[in-house]
Amino acid sequence: MMDAVVRGPDGAVQTTAIESAADLAMVRDSDGVTWIDATGGDESALALVSEAFDLHDLSADDVRAGGRAKVEEFDEYTLLRVNSVKRRTDSWTVTDPIRDVSVGLFVGSDWLVSYSMEPLAAIDDVRDALVRGRGRIRERGPDFLAYLVVTTLVEEYFRVLDDLEARLEGIEDAVIDGPSSVTLEEINDVRRDLLAFRRLVWPTREAIATLALGDVTNIDELTRRYYRDAYEELVELVELTETYRDLASGSRDIYLNTVAMSTNEVMKKLTVVATIVLPLTFVAGVYGMNFEGSPYNMPELAWTFGYPATMLGMLAVAVILLVYFRREGWL
Amino acid sequence: MMDAVVRGPDGAVQTTAIESAADLAMVRDSDGVTWIDATGGDESALALVSEAFDLHDLSADDVRAGGRAKVEEFDEYTLLRVNSVKRRTDSWTVTDPIRDVSVGLFVGSDWLVSYSMEPLAAIDDVRDALVRGRGRIRERGPDFLAYLVVTTLVEEYFRVLDDLEARLEGIEDAVIDGPSSVTLEEINDVRRDLLAFRRLVWPTREAIATLALGDVTNIDELTRRYYRDAYEELVELVELTETYRDLASGSRDIYLNTVAMSTNEVMKKLTVVATIVLPLTFVAGVYGMNFEGSPYNMPELAWTFGYPATMLGMLAVAVILLVYFRREGWL
Amino acid sequence: MMDAVVRGPDGAVQTTAIESAADLAMVRDSDGVTWIDATGGDESALALVSEAFDLHDLSADDVRAGGRAKVEEFDEYTLLRVNSVKRRTDSWTVTDPIRDVSVGLFVGSDWLVSYSMEPLAAIDDVRDALVRGRGRIRERGPDFLAYLVVTTLVEEYFRVLDDLEARLEGIEDAVIDGPSSVTLEEINDVRRDLLAFRRLVWPTREAIATLALGDVTNIDELTRRYYRDAYEELVELVELTETYRDLASGSRDIYLNTVAMSTNEVMKKLTVVATIVLPLTFVAGVYGMNFEGSPYNMPELAWTFGYPATMLGMLAVAVILLVYFRREGWL
Amino acid sequence: MMDAVVRGPDGAVQTTAIESAADLAMVRDSDGVTWIDATGGDESALALVSEAFDLHDLSADDVRAGGRAKVEEFDEYTLLRVNSVKRRTDSWTVTDPIRDVSVGLFVGSDWLVSYSMEPLAAIDDVRDALVRGRGRIRERGPDFLAYLVVTTLVEEYFRVLDDLEARLEGIEDAVIDGPSSVTLEEINDVRRDLLAFRRLVWPTREAIATLALGDVTNIDELTRRYYRDAYEELVELVELTETYRDLASGSRDIYLNTVAMSTNEVMKKLTVVATIVLPLTFVAGVYGMNFEGSPYNMPELAWTFGYPATMLGMLAVAVILLVYFRREGWL
Amino acid sequence: MMDAVVRGPDGAVQTTAIESAADLAMVRDSDGVTWIDATGGDESALALVSEAFDLHDLSADDVRAGGRAKVEEFDEYTLLRVNSVKRRTDSWTVTDPIRDVSVGLFVGSDWLVSYSMEPLAAIDDVRDALVRGRGRIRERGPDFLAYLVVTTLVEEYFRVLDDLEARLEGIEDAVIDGPSSVTLEEINDVRRDLLAFRRLVWPTREAIATLALGDVTNIDELTRRYYRDAYEELVELVELTETYRDLASGSRDIYLNTVAMSTNEVMKKLTVVATIVLPLTFVAGVYGMNFEGSPYNMPELAWTFGYPATMLGMLAVAVILLVYFRREGWL
Ligand SMILES: [Mg+2]
Ligand SMILES: [Mg+2]
Ligand SMILES: [Mg+2]
Ligand SMILES: [Mg+2]
Ligand SMILES: [Mg+2]
Ligand SMILES: [Mg+2]
Ligand SMILES: [Mg+2]
Ligand SMILES: [Mg+2]
Ligand SMILES: [Mg+2]
Ligand SMILES: [Mg+2]
Ligand SMILES: [Mg+2]
Ligand SMILES: [Mg+2]
Ligand SMILES: [Mg+2]
Ligand SMILES: [Mg+2]
Ligand SMILES: [Mg+2]
Ligand SMILES: [Mg+2]
Ligand SMILES: [Mg+2]
Ligand SMILES: [Mg+2]
Ligand SMILES: [Mg+2]
Ligand SMILES: [Mg+2]
Ligand SMILES: [Mg+2]
Ligand SMILES: [Mg+2]
Ligand SMILES: [Mg+2]
Ligand SMILES: [Mg+2]
Ligand SMILES: [Mg+2]
Ligand SMILES: [Mg+2]
Ligand SMILES: [Mg+2]
Ligand SMILES: [Mg+2]
Ligand SMILES: [Mg+2]
Ligand SMILES: [Mg+2]
Ligand SMILES: [Mg+2]
Repeated sequence: MMDAVVRGPDGAVQTTAIESAADLAMVRDSDGVTWIDATGGDESALALVSEAFDLHDLSADDVRAGGRAKVEEFDEYTLLRVNSVKRRTDSWTVTDPIRDVSVGLFVGSDWLVSYSMEPLAAIDDVRDALVRGRGRIRERGPDFLAYLVVTTLVEEYFRVLDDLEARLEGIEDAVIDGPSSVTLEEINDVRRDLLAFRRLVWPTREAIATLALGDVTNIDELTRRYYRDAYEELVELVELTETYRDLASGSRDIYLNTVAMSTNEVMKKLTVVATIVLPLTFVAGVYGMNFEGSPYNMPELAWTFGYPATMLGMLAVAVILLVYFRREGWL
Repeated sequence: MMDAVVRGPDGAVQTTAIESAADLAMVRDSDGVTWIDATGGDESALALVSEAFDLHDLSADDVRAGGRAKVEEFDEYTLLRVNSVKRRTDSWTVTDPIRDVSVGLFVGSDWLVSYSMEPLAAIDDVRDALVRGRGRIRERGPDFLAYLVVTTLVEEYFRVLDDLEARLEGIEDAVIDGPSSVTLEEINDVRRDLLAFRRLVWPTREAIATLALGDVTNIDELTRRYYRDAYEELVELVELTETYRDLASGSRDIYLNTVAMSTNEVMKKLTVVATIVLPLTFVAGVYGMNFEGSPYNMPELAWTFGYPATMLGMLAVAVILLVYFRREGWL
Repeated sequence: MMDAVVRGPDGAVQTTAIESAADLAMVRDSDGVTWIDATGGDESALALVSEAFDLHDLSADDVRAGGRAKVEEFDEYTLLRVNSVKRRTDSWTVTDPIRDVSVGLFVGSDWLVSYSMEPLAAIDDVRDALVRGRGRIRERGPDFLAYLVVTTLVEEYFRVLDDLEARLEGIEDAVIDGPSSVTLEEINDVRRDLLAFRRLVWPTREAIATLALGDVTNIDELTRRYYRDAYEELVELVELTETYRDLASGSRDIYLNTVAMSTNEVMKKLTVVATIVLPLTFVAGVYGMNFEGSPYNMPELAWTFGYPATMLGMLAVAVILLVYFRREGWL
Repeated sequence: MMDAVVRGPDGAVQTTAIESAADLAMVRDSDGVTWIDATGGDESALALVSEAFDLHDLSADDVRAGGRAKVEEFDEYTLLRVNSVKRRTDSWTVTDPIRDVSVGLFVGSDWLVSYSMEPLAAIDDVRDALVRGRGRIRERGPDFLAYLVVTTLVEEYFRVLDDLEARLEGIEDAVIDGPSSVTLEEINDVRRDLLAFRRLVWPTREAIATLALGDVTNIDELTRRYYRDAYEELVELVELTETYRDLASGSRDIYLNTVAMSTNEVMKKLTVVATIVLPLTFVAGVYGMNFEGSPYNMPELAWTFGYPATMLGMLAVAVILLVYFRREGWL
Repeated sequence: MMDAVVRGPDGAVQTTAIESAADLAMVRDSDGVTWIDATGGDESALALVSEAFDLHDLSADDVRAGGRAKVEEFDEYTLLRVNSVKRRTDSWTVTDPIRDVSVGLFVGSDWLVSYSMEPLAAIDDVRDALVRGRGRIRERGPDFLAYLVVTTLVEEYFRVLDDLEARLEGIEDAVIDGPSSVTLEEINDVRRDLLAFRRLVWPTREAIATLALGDVTNIDELTRRYYRDAYEELVELVELTETYRDLASGSRDIYLNTVAMSTNEVMKKLTVVATIVLPLTFVAGVYGMNFEGSPYNMPELAWTFGYPATMLGMLAVAVILLVYFRREGWL
């Protein structure tokens, strides 16, 4: 299923459901700007549209298969493929955490075809704005409508990046609380998602740069400034992504150091206990020996204050060692 | 041995075995598009073909020796060298884990020569499609046949990368189960394979970019769009390879941390045992001393409840330490 | 609220408060150079100015929203967006430690509009210098005034970087004193701030390069040398930032090594204690055994000098081990 | 000492020893292609040749001092400086492990001068081939002779890299056998040699690219294809060098992990011993206490089966702990 | 204070002290090549010279303030700012270990002005060579004199880098002797100095490249070859700097591993001691128990050879464990 939204020469906007090749030919040949919206459509819609607007076979394949954002010029139209993005909730594969849906925008001289395998909020929002709209959206051509879709997607990207930033701040708090095996996996997950996000945003930035800076078929001089604006936002997105990756690395460093520090602390505790208790146990062992039968054999055992003196000596050793360890900062 | 597949001006396709220079001259001079397929051929086939189609000595050497993908233009033909890829099953050398077979595609104005030292599935598939085929494959020239070989090889690359992704997912599962010396070697193997794969795909991407974007001898304007499509897939392959390498690094980090965490846990257990048992042993040692002969020497030993009181005291110390360690999260 | 500073053809400088569109039209149409300063202004000021000087909608949005430094040329003016920078004292978010305020400088043929959401010291300083000034500031056009703002901001950047250098030197001193969990966080904070700072300075450098090297609307040939001078300072800033990041990495390495060294020292102490005391305790344990009733059962216990000899033997063992450990450098 | 190899217009090749400026002038002015080979020569040979062929002072200095590979064009000749390479056997300096000998090739219109401070196998091989040779080597000009030297040197580079690969494979085997301080130094040595090798090959690649792609004085169109072939081999060399460095890093990671794993294993053994023996020793200590004189004081000591029961209890504890540790995978 | 060195049309060289603007005007207007040397000069010298040779205000500021090497062209002269370098002996700041003194070389058509805040050996050497000199230094213009200063500074750089190499070799020896906290700081110091050195050499390389390759005001075609020569040496310097940084990283890796290996060794020693002594101590503890009053209670104590048998058993256990640990390579 697909719809045609036609803005007539009088500025009136009308929406028609397209049922057949004949419907399509009629809206194509009408005056004014025609937007054929086949998002959420089936393959037959794409076939119909390809026939009616003479789209290249490879173009049709490109939007059907999806992939990196790109711009490709043809004699009669420019193809802009961009991607809508959501984080997978059902993260069933570690190597592909961000789910993206490609949408193809075919920008003709006075027509626009949008196609994707699923309905997209960004497309619907721009269509609604066109139907209800005033001002520029009613005056500019299909290149401006395509820009509005792009800028709506860029806002989506910023929301995804905000999520990633929030997770990163959670991680920075968590690493200060101490090491737990779960946290390092979470750090790695964020790094992986930032990597996937960057892989999505980077080609988008390049594609929009082509529209902003080059002399592209059916992209108006005036509209190029708008693409430049979107381009600047995409530059900011890529930069933030790089920065967040670096911050995630920093968190990982702190995390790993916390483990090393903890082992160090554990070792110190063990050493303190062993250093205090082992010598005392040795002394107790000595006075548990059974030497006898000679005035040189353990006369201490028979001294009047032998036991209390020994205990006080042990206490003194323990106290001295405790003071020493405290001064060294081990306690 | 080699075959000639000739598509006559009437569109009919005919396959002939080439036995001699004379056979070769005949098919070369016939009308229509001639494909000399000498894959799996011996050196004499290459010599015959070089003579008949006036191939440069260096071109012949290039396909015989194999190597990185490349495009090189000559007056009468364009040489495209690409590589078929398999993972070595008999991995006898750590520094060369991916085995590749170079194939040279010599694209003339109305002829194509394919040569490689081994038979290649990609070549056979395209030949079959030509013999059985309809549509574009019957209408376009030798540059399009070469494209079909390239796109078949790119599909091969994606299958290899899928294998690598599967191994990577296995690793991510394994590192969560805990450290074992085998796993780090496996992580390193995948990193090494990704490195080798990238070294194979990167020059292919550059070579196809030359065909897609440049103005290359015997590559038709219309066919360039198809090479561009292959180029975009190769860009995707390189990007995924980089991402997988980064994910492998992440797995290695988790792995190494698991070892450090484990050592930390072991140390904690040792410290808990030592901290509880050593002081108690000391106490037992004290009451094993042999002081006697004075009311100050160990009167506790003779107290009615001396032994049970001591045992209860020891139990209390043990319980207090256990509670403390549990609160600290060491148990 | 905004002011107009007009330098008349006679060189006299006069400041007027702008209250309305009429005021604005009057100063705009006056002879000489007109500077409309709307920093610290509200959105209505920007609207008035946009109307009077025919600023593009996107330009107005750009300065309102703020963002990376940039230069954008329009038919009648050049927009330069730069940023004032302070370190946040109320560091409420780990991922955005450096607070920047964007200022838009619209450079016309004989007019300059400055706009930002907050008052800025850099703008005020240049305005004061113009009002009080002599020499070049009174002779050159709006492009030179914009340069003066830029160079004042660059001085600000150098002060921020000096702060970061001071913190870094503090860190280098601290890491030599030994590991404490606080220090690694501080190292990471400095790295993060350097990253944020670099993200601010880098696009500024690129924007000023455009003015210094390109042929930009309303930027005079003579003034370009001054932008080149600012560009060189920005290159120095970026270089220092990179260097400081590298030094911070070095400090982190020393820090982490200090932890590993400390664990090594702790282990050595424990090993020394255990190696000396445990064998002696074993000997004491042996002579605490209760074998008897046969001339072969512990005759030592009854020897005249059994006890002193045993104690001397233990002392000898302890001394030998201490000497050994000292020779090995463990003590 | 130097020789002149002259290929006359009739294709005959003749070798003459050059003793004086007059000899040099004579062969220079003879018809055909003249190769003055002054490799292994003294400085006076270079002075003579510089005078006779009007070589720039800086050119003479460049080949005398040696250094990175480079191409420099002069009015009458092109200077190509390349390097022969051997691994130092007498490795007296850690920062310069690969010894290279620069050779200058001065390519004139119909003359070639080769100069280096030492005799070089590559030069001798090409000279021999020219004297004995047939085919292209007898037909092409001095640019082709220079190419033959380059390609011979590239083969030398491949042999050096094969050595490095062999050492790397030895390392990969060694790290699996376990950590020893010697191995990490060997890994580092290979990394350092790869770095030195890359520093040698990289500028060679750039220099040959200039000859292959540019329009260089005295380098024939036809010969450029041959330089392109050498260039492709140098690209392969640089790529392999990078890959080997990465593999060396991987080996280092495994090596370091092996140390951490070993420490982990050692700690586990210690913990197992301590956890089993310390509690049993405590029990023995308890029954070594001297409480007596009350029915509550250690009645166990007098029970009929007190001792065997205690020993069995201890055995049970030991067995339970052993089973536990085995289940945990510590044994 | 400053001097003028004038080379008259007859080739005679004369040195005059400049005391006033009039002196300056006279030497400026004299025939031949005039070199005004104001190195080690005060600001008034710079002011006088700026006036006499019409130097741009920004040029004067550039050499006064110092900074990165650069080339800047003006209508009547080219400014080359380069830096003399020494290692600080009084290293009072960790972030700026290499002290550099900027010198400005203003190259006019037939005059040269050199200015710096301190006297520089490189300038003095070239001046001496000019006064005493023969050959090229007497024939070429001010661009060649500036080249001589540059090449003298490059020699200085090589000496500094030789120092750094010597320190690096000292480090490589030290890390093999074992870990000490001082060494890691020294490694880091060398890394930091290499970083500072690279920051100094890199822009010098770029500046000299401009002179060697571009078409710069007052730089003669013939002299450009000499700048190219200096450029190649600077390329070598940058490359060596990168290599040394990599070697320093390698030393750091070995150093850190030595710490980990040492901890591993310490742990092994502790484990050996504990594993041998603790079980024996347990046995001694057992035979120190006071069970009695039943034929089942410790009958061993009364056996004729109970004690010697026990001691032999203990010895056997110790020997077996020692043999085991030696076989495992722990001893
Ligand atoms: Mg992925
Ligand atoms: Mg990517
Ligand atoms: Mg990309
Ligand atoms: Mg960026
Ligand atoms: Mg990274
Ligand atoms: Mg960080
Ligand atoms: Mg390769
Ligand atoms: Mg390899
Ligand atoms: Mg490559
Ligand atoms: Mg990429
Ligand atoms: Mg990762
Ligand atoms: Mg940030
Ligand atoms: Mg940035
Ligand atoms: Mg940027
Ligand atoms: Mg830089
Ligand atoms: Mg670096
Ligand atoms: Mg860095
Ligand atoms: Mg450092
Ligand atoms: Mg070099
Ligand atoms: Mg070196
Ligand atoms: Mg280089
Ligand atoms: Mg490469
Ligand atoms: Mg590298
Ligand atoms: Mg890498
Ligand atoms: Mg690896
Ligand atoms: Mg600098
Ligand atoms: Mg610094
Ligand atoms: Mg720089
Ligand atoms: Mg380099
Ligand atoms: Mg590094
Ligand atoms: Mg290294």
